[in-house]
Amino acid sequence: MSPKEPAKPLRIALLGCGSVGSEVARILLEQSSDLTKRVGARLELAGIAVRRLSHQRSAGLDPALFTADALSLATRPDVDIVVEVIGGIEPARSVILAAMKAGKSVVTANKALLAENGAEIHGGSAEYGVDLYYEAAVAGGIPLLRPLRESLAGDRVRRVLGIVNGTTNFILDRMDTAAADFTETLEEAQALGYAEADPTADVEGFDAAAKAAILAGLAFHTEVTAADVHREGITEVTAADIASARSLGRVVKLLAICERSDRGVSVRVHPAMIPRTHPLASVGGAYNAVFVEAESAGSLMFYGAGAGGTPTASAVLGDIVAVARNRLAGSLGPALSTYAGLPVLPMGDTLTRYHVSLDVADRPGVLASVADAFARHGVSIRAVRQEGRGDEAQLVLVTHEARDAALSATVRDLVSLAVVRAVVSVMRVEGEEAPS
Amino acid sequence: MSPKEPAKPLRIALLGCGSVGSEVARILLEQSSDLTKRVGARLELAGIAVRRLSHQRSAGLDPALFTADALSLATRPDVDIVVEVIGGIEPARSVILAAMKAGKSVVTANKALLAENGAEIHGGSAEYGVDLYYEAAVAGGIPLLRPLRESLAGDRVRRVLGIVNGTTNFILDRMDTAAADFTETLEEAQALGYAEADPTADVEGFDAAAKAAILAGLAFHTEVTAADVHREGITEVTAADIASARSLGRVVKLLAICERSDRGVSVRVHPAMIPRTHPLASVGGAYNAVFVEAESAGSLMFYGAGAGGTPTASAVLGDIVAVARNRLAGSLGPALSTYAGLPVLPMGDTLTRYHVSLDVADRPGVLASVADAFARHGVSIRAVRQEGRGDEAQLVLVTHEARDAALSATVRDLVSLAVVRAVVSVMRVEGEEAPS
Repeated sequence: MSPKEPAKPLRIALLGCGSVGSEVARILLEQSSDLTKRVGARLELAGIAVRRLSHQRSAGLDPALFTADALSLATRPDVDIVVEVIGGIEPARSVILAAMKAGKSVVTANKALLAENGAEIHGGSAEYGVDLYYEAAVAGGIPLLRPLRESLAGDRVRRVLGIVNGTTNFILDRMDTAAADFTETLEEAQALGYAEADPTADVEGFDAAAKAAILAGLAFHTEVTAADVHREGITEVTAADIASARSLGRVVKLLAICERSDRGVSVRVHPAMIPRTHPLASVGGAYNAVFVEAESAGSLMFYGAGAGGTPTASAVLGDIVAVARNRLAGSLGPALSTYAGLPVLPMGDTLTRYHVSLDVADRPGVLASVADAFARHGVSIRAVRQEGRGDEAQLVLVTHEARDAALSATVRDLVSLAVVRAVVSVMRVEGEEAPS
Repeated sequence: MSPKEPAKPLRIALLGCGSVGSEVARILLEQSSDLTKRVGARLELAGIAVRRLSHQRSAGLDPALFTADALSLATRPDVDIVVEVIGGIEPARSVILAAMKAGKSVVTANKALLAENGAEIHGGSAEYGVDLYYEAAVAGGIPLLRPLRESLAGDRVRRVLGIVNGTTNFILDRMDTAAADFTETLEEAQALGYAEADPTADVEGFDAAAKAAILAGLAFHTEVTAADVHREGITEVTAADIASARSLGRVVKLLAICERSDRGVSVRVHPAMIPRTHPLASVGGAYNAVFVEAESAGSLMFYGAGAGGTPTASAVLGDIVAVARNRLAGSLGPALSTYAGLPVLPMGDTLTRYHVSLDVADRPGVLASVADAFARHGVSIRAVRQEGRGDEAQLVLVTHEARDAALSATVRDLVSLAVVRAVVSVMRVEGEEAPS
C-alpha cells in the first residue's frame, strides 16, 4: 500500500438513537469530510440499533441502517467501533461485553453501567485488548475525564468538587434567585424540560452519585462503585436553608465530592453551602462545572454544558476519533489504573463541617447549653452569630472539621434541647480553606 | 519475558533546571513509585542540562546528573525521553531536532519555539516518528491542549477567548480594584514577583501572542505562527478605560482571541472590555482561563494556574507519562493536523466591535456630527449614552460588528472633529452575543 493510499473506512455501530444518538449520527454524516481528515480514515455508520423499529427516526438517516437487534449489530464482522448511548444496565452491559469479545472498540456514555459494573466492563476491555472510552458519561460535553486521566497522570489529585447534575443545579439556582420552595421549583423545571416526569434519578442524587464514583475512581486510581457513594438529594433543601446560606454569603449546591486523605477516600453527594466567591458558586442554570485540587497543578475548574444531546454528542465524537486513531495505529488508549486500591471511608468517618441554624429562646444560658452539645461530641465551633428577635433569637453556628458522625450526633442532641425551638437549617459546608 | 516482568526503565533527559525543571526533577524522584505504577515502567532521570554547572542546584539531586552539554545529553543512547524546559528559540530548537532524529520522545513547555518554528518542530516529530507533547506551553498547569486536540476532535471550534498571561491579568485586575494607573501597578507587580524586571514579553502581549498562535493552530487545524497574530499589549490601557468599562458593567482583560469565520481565521491579542457577567470576567489575580465555543459542545471554560514552577511541572509530568506509555506500547500520540489550511485574516478585515468614550461639547448638533463619523465608515451604532456635565458632556458609544479597519478609521475621524474635546477611551468589546 502506498503511503498516500487512504486507510479502509472504520465502521461504527450506533446503539441507541435518542437525543444523543441522533446527534452522533447527524454529526458523523454532516462532518464526514472533517472527521476523515482528522482520523485518517472514513468513519461509516454501519447500523443503528433502536428498541422499536416503528418509531419515526431522524430525517436524513437511511431506514436500512436501523435494526432492533443490538447484539447482532454490535458483533457484526464489518463493525469496528461500537457506540453505546442506550443507557441503563441491561441490555447495554451484555451487548458491550459481547462487542469487546468480538474485538470492537467501545465508546459509551453510560454512567450507570460504569458506576455499577465498572470493574467488569474495564475487565472486558483489558481481557479482549480493546479500547473503552467514556468521556460523555460524566458532565456531558465538558472534557473532564481525559484531563483527569491523562493530563493529571503525573500529579496527585486531592479533591474533586463537582456540580455534575444540571437538573438539580437549575432547581437550586431558581430557589436561590426566586426565593421559591423545592416543590414549586421542581414543577417549573419539569414544565421547562429541565426535569423529567419522574425526577428521582436527579433530585435524589443517583445520577450525581454514579458520576462521583467514576470521577473518584479516575482521580484516585482506586475502584469505586455507586454503592460506595454516600448519597443525599435535594428534596429536603428548604427555602430556609437557602436564605440562611444567603445571609452568610453562601449558596447551596448539590456537590459530588471526592476527597483523598491519609486514611482513604471519601466519595459523596449531598447539598452543601459554598462561599459565593468560590468559582463553583457562579455556575448557574443547568450548567455543570468540576473543580479539581491537585498537589502540583493547584486549583483547576472545568465548566460547560453537562447534558443535552448535542454537547454529549461532542464528547462521544471526540472518543470515536480517539479510538479510530488508535485502531489505525494498532494501539490502545491508557487502561484504567486502580493500583492505589485505597479504602473508601464510611460517611460517619468522613471529616466535614456543618452549618447549623437554630431558633432559640432569647435568655441567659442558651448559648451555653447549645455550645455544650457541640463540646460533648468533641466538635469545635468556628463561627457563631446570634440575632435577637423579641423573646426568640436565631443562632447560626459553623463548625470546624469533625467526623460526620459526631456532627450528626450533635444535631440530634440539639433537637432535643429545651432551649432550641426549631432547627431551621442543617447543612454541610464545603469549598473553604480550613482555618490554620 | 513473562507478562508480570516489569518493563525496563525509561530514561529522561531534563534540559533546564529553573523553576519548572527543578520541580519536574523533584516530582520524578518523590513520586517515583506512583509514576511507575501509572506508566508500567520506572521513570529514571538520566541527566540534567544546565547553562552553568557552577550554579547551586536543588537539594536532593545527585550532582553527577548535571551537565552543561544539552546536545550530548539529549542524544545519548540511554535516553528515551527529552524534556525541554529551557525556553527561547536556540539552543532549544537545535537540541530538540537532534533528539528527535536520535529517536527520543520530546516533551516541551516552549511556547516561543512552537509559535515561531512550529512547522519545523512538528515536521521533525513526523519525520522521525517520535512523540511531541507540549501541554505546558499554554496556560501552565491547566489541561487545555489535550482537551482541544483530542476531546474536541469530533467537534468544530468556533472561537477561543483566553486569559493566558497571568502578569497582565494581575495588573489589569489591580487597576480595576485599586483604581490605579498602569505604571504604578506594574511596579507593584514587579515588587510582588508577578512581573519580571523587563516586563516586555508580558505587557506588550508577546507571551500571549505565542500562546494564541498555538491555540489557533490546534483549534482550527491550520498552521498559525506568532507572526500571524495581531498583537497589542496593555501599556496603553488607562485608568479612564477601566473606569469607562466599569460604568457600563464591563471589565478590561487582555485576551487571546482565535475566531473562525467563513472567510478564514482571526488570531489576535489585545485588551478588550467584556461584560462582568462573562465567565472570564471573574478570573482574578494571576489566574488563567480559556473560554472555548464549539459547535456541538457549546461554551466551555478551563480555569487554573497559568504559570509557576509547580503547576507547569504538573502539565510536563502528564505529558511525560503519556509519551512513556506510548513508548511502552510502541505507539504515538495524535499528530498535529493542519489539513484545514484556513487563511489568517489581516486585523483590518477582522470583524470587531468598539467601545468609544468621548468628551464632547454639550450643544445641539454634537451627537449628529459624531454619529455621522460612524455612518461615513458604514459602522452601525448599537448603544449610545450621553451624560451632561456643565458645558461638556460624556458620550459613550458601542458599535455593532464592523471591519476593524472601518472602526479605527472612524476613531481617527472622531479625533479631528471640532466638537470632540477628548477621546477618553477606545477599546474593543468581546464576549457578548451579537444582537439578532
